[in-house]
Amino acid sequence: MRKVDPWEVFPQVQETLSAGGAFLLSVDEGGRPNPMTIGWGLLGTVWYRNVFLVLVRPSRYSHGLIERGGHFAVCVPRPGELREALEFCGTRSGRELDKVEALGLGVTPGRAGPVPLLAECNLHYECRVVTHTSLSPEDILSPEISSKYYPTGDLHSLFFGEILAAWRQ
Amino acid sequence: MRKVDPWEVFPQVQETLSAGGAFLLSVDEGGRPNPMTIGWGLLGTVWYRNVFLVLVRPSRYSHGLIERGGHFAVCVPRPGELREALEFCGTRSGRELDKVEALGLGVTPGRAGPVPLLAECNLHYECRVVTHTSLSPEDILSPEISSKYYPTGDLHSLFFGEILAAWRQ
Repeated sequence: MRKVDPWEVFPQVQETLSAGGAFLLSVDEGGRPNPMTIGWGLLGTVWYRNVFLVLVRPSRYSHGLIERGGHFAVCVPRPGELREALEFCGTRSGRELDKVEALGLGVTPGRAGPVPLLAECNLHYECRVVTHTSLSPEDILSPEISSKYYPTGDLHSLFFGEILAAWRQ
Repeated sequence: MRKVDPWEVFPQVQETLSAGGAFLLSVDEGGRPNPMTIGWGLLGTVWYRNVFLVLVRPSRYSHGLIERGGHFAVCVPRPGELREALEFCGTRSGRELDKVEALGLGVTPGRAGPVPLLAECNLHYECRVVTHTSLSPEDILSPEISSKYYPTGDLHSLFFGEILAAWRQ
């Protein structure tokens, strides 16, 4: 793996997120990684730090893991790859089973943080949560967004992850 | 001006933000534009929409304008250009004077939204605020960030602007 400029690879990250998604990884207390599929994410600069902002609903198993662990990783597959794993990780919960084991995915230890990375992906962001805030119903100013994504509440938490390192496989 | 893919130009936007900054524009009730300088910003996808997330402190004149107007624009100069205007717009308030007039900047009407654009810039994002949330002191998990940026409170508001159009001059 070689270090990359997190901005240089941004178009590929956004394209992959929008096409099939990427993996958001967190770890449980025993260091076991749990991947969930994300299709949304923001990248940029805040507090003069490079930041990857991810959105996770409080109902998700990953939510508690990221809150308690304070770290996450985003692993981005090559466009079009790992479709089945993305589908699986977007519909099954880590509360029920070990998704990495069930899928037989390869993992490699994180180099800049405690969260392992998925070996089959070719771009990796290792992040430390520096700010965590929650959306409230009155924050959503678009009625279409409210009715489409939050009909039953469960509004997303925003995890601002300082990018400790970005890697290309 | 021609329409551009907002992701394609992301590396230039981030580079310019980090180097000298860009202009965040909003309008008052009379349609008069007010530019402030920003050095931070995030781009990506949320709610399956292209989003430019900007951070503005409640004490800023722009804060009320964006809240009331519901729109903003981000105008990005060519790297190294408009240094003096960026410095001026980062230190003077629109409450005191008309910054566009004081600097003799050229403006051109927005094409997708109500906020005028700065003619001297070469990249423009026109955005509609779809979500607005505020940071609380307990959201900031990094003591360095708390003490460096929020010693007296005035924590940033997060304005999620759906990108209506991105243009290159």
